[in-house]
Amino acid sequence: MTLGFEVLARDGKARRGRLVTAHGVVETPVFMPVGTAATVKAMTPEGVAATGARLVLGNTYHLMLRPGAERIAALGGLHRFMNWSYAILTDSGGFQVMSLAKLRKIGEEGVTFRSHLDGSAHLLTPERSIEIQRLLGADVTMALDECTPYPSPREAVEASMELSMRWAERSRRSFVERPGHGIFGIVQGGVHPDLRLRSVARLIGIGFDGYAVGGLAIGEGQAATFAVLDATVPALPPDQPRYLMGVGKPADLVGAVMRGVDMFDCVLPTRSGRTAQAFTRHGVLNLRNAGHADNPAPLDAECRCPACTGYSRAYLHHLCRSGEILGAMLLTAHNLRYYADLMAEMRQAIEKGGLADFAAAFAEAQARPQQESGEWVEDQR
Amino acid sequence: MTLGFEVLARDGKARRGRLVTAHGVVETPVFMPVGTAATVKAMTPEGVAATGARLVLGNTYHLMLRPGAERIAALGGLHRFMNWSYAILTDSGGFQVMSLAKLRKIGEEGVTFRSHLDGSAHLLTPERSIEIQRLLGADVTMALDECTPYPSPREAVEASMELSMRWAERSRRSFVERPGHGIFGIVQGGVHPDLRLRSVARLIGIGFDGYAVGGLAIGEGQAATFAVLDATVPALPPDQPRYLMGVGKPADLVGAVMRGVDMFDCVLPTRSGRTAQAFTRHGVLNLRNAGHADNPAPLDAECRCPACTGYSRAYLHHLCRSGEILGAMLLTAHNLRYYADLMAEMRQAIEKGGLADFAAAFAEAQARPQQESGEWVEDQR
Repeated sequence: MTLGFEVLARDGKARRGRLVTAHGVVETPVFMPVGTAATVKAMTPEGVAATGARLVLGNTYHLMLRPGAERIAALGGLHRFMNWSYAILTDSGGFQVMSLAKLRKIGEEGVTFRSHLDGSAHLLTPERSIEIQRLLGADVTMALDECTPYPSPREAVEASMELSMRWAERSRRSFVERPGHGIFGIVQGGVHPDLRLRSVARLIGIGFDGYAVGGLAIGEGQAATFAVLDATVPALPPDQPRYLMGVGKPADLVGAVMRGVDMFDCVLPTRSGRTAQAFTRHGVLNLRNAGHADNPAPLDAECRCPACTGYSRAYLHHLCRSGEILGAMLLTAHNLRYYADLMAEMRQAIEKGGLADFAAAFAEAQARPQQESGEWVEDQR
Repeated sequence: MTLGFEVLARDGKARRGRLVTAHGVVETPVFMPVGTAATVKAMTPEGVAATGARLVLGNTYHLMLRPGAERIAALGGLHRFMNWSYAILTDSGGFQVMSLAKLRKIGEEGVTFRSHLDGSAHLLTPERSIEIQRLLGADVTMALDECTPYPSPREAVEASMELSMRWAERSRRSFVERPGHGIFGIVQGGVHPDLRLRSVARLIGIGFDGYAVGGLAIGEGQAATFAVLDATVPALPPDQPRYLMGVGKPADLVGAVMRGVDMFDCVLPTRSGRTAQAFTRHGVLNLRNAGHADNPAPLDAECRCPACTGYSRAYLHHLCRSGEILGAMLLTAHNLRYYADLMAEMRQAIEKGGLADFAAAFAEAQARPQQESGEWVEDQR
């Protein structure tokens, strides 16, 4: 047995599922905090788990360059290295090679590039990417794909997708089956429904433990993202997990769950936590705004995170203005808890067959003029 | 009743004591983590308490400038603002005015200066310093003093000390007595025993709840610091707490406890935690050293802090090299735990009458060539 996945309930296209990995059970739909360099930035693993997270993402590109996959393997694997006993999904490295590495050159064999850290030369092939992810000990491995920039000519998107499909086949062949471990293929094809469907068919032909939709949230806009999902997701196997990579804002998650997506990752909650942004059920607050300076209220009175149960907005404002690390720690904890709670609420709504109502209430609360609620007025200044 | 203080045991000049404040009991000798801007940097209050700390220091200078003493008072005081339910000692602001503020001008009335943050003009008098500390809600308030630079001509040190004594009298007069709250005077006089003793006599004449030794650890060296303590501490009241300000390295703490000091504060453990330095019973480790990269051992196998119980040196090295916030979080937690454990061990040793033996063993362990213990060798590279 590889990964286990079970759909427990359906509500329209949305699914309430359960992923069973070598490092525990993950309830879906799920948001995965991003642990780029073997740490979810500004968080302890205990703090990450306290948000409700049971699955985090690790970045192959970053880890292969520093500290190195073989080193992590010698130290007992990524779980032990970063003291995270729950599940880990690793990406393939493809996306960061395209966005971060220097002098990259893509060929049939793979990608040659130079490290953005020290300029050292590397070759990332499908086989090497899968090997690295095995050395890290990922519960969920991702096939290596090429991420086509947006916008690109259709011919370029098509050629890139076809290359990614050949890499997907090599990735699948290289993957070593182990109990509780699995490999996902990645659908490419830009914003072109026919290319996306061709990619889906190729991946299903190869056969994966789950299917990701890649190459989105790179500037095409939410409407285009959702249109691709509308065209793509129904063609995916109904009994396997679906993962929308690199997405997104809270409203993106709600819309994608309604379109049948089970898994997400994004740096937004963690990165925002380091830039004084807090997600709440009434939208995003910028804690640097002077209007918070005297406000004794918590960020969100309904939230049970450490930031909301222990501190005023005035204090969080002070920390952010003073550049204190605790500000990043508390806001990151809050944002991850917000994302985890949002997913938990959607799971409940699906179980009750009430996701559409939930989504409508969510959209209304996010759009509600903040003046209607006295405590939000300061953000209008 | 103001502050309570009881000497429970003596061992030579060293004392095992207990300070009773409005926010709980503090066992002495004690090290106070520094919470400059209403946060012990890179730590949650829960994390600070988990190191064993029951008393932290807040900086009047920083807090008066940002977010402002009246604002903190309106928000319920510093304890509530920073979510710290144990005791707080605040300094008077004098030291930071001298070291950080711009265009400062000292007169009989007080110090005028411009904020290092925004250039705004301020006047800090003894009366205003005490008022600020009352607004913050400090359990232990410090009298305003002038910190004479080292070295300075004797005449300058004498004049400065006399000014500080006049300020001490005004500080004492301004202090509002409240149960569990107290005010400490600060002995000045540089490295001159006769000036120090004159300062002690002046302060005792005024009458304080405790006595600090100030103006040390500013470049005079450990031998000179200890010589001042040897000349000064025996003249202090035997039944009141003694606080050596801004000290110090672990060996400084051991030597000062042996000379009868009860309380300490220093940024060293927290600042070092943000610069990859870890204090251990065998000296200081620099976690940036490449020699740690493959080391699966913890920082200190005997330490019960989160860094030592959950992570390898290899991982801490990786975090420090990658500039990850978690590196600062874990090393700060470790260093504060190291300091807290060192103080707890000294308290135990005093109770058993074994402080001299403890100090000898401490000095030997710190000086032991690291080659003798295989796991320390890498720091010789």
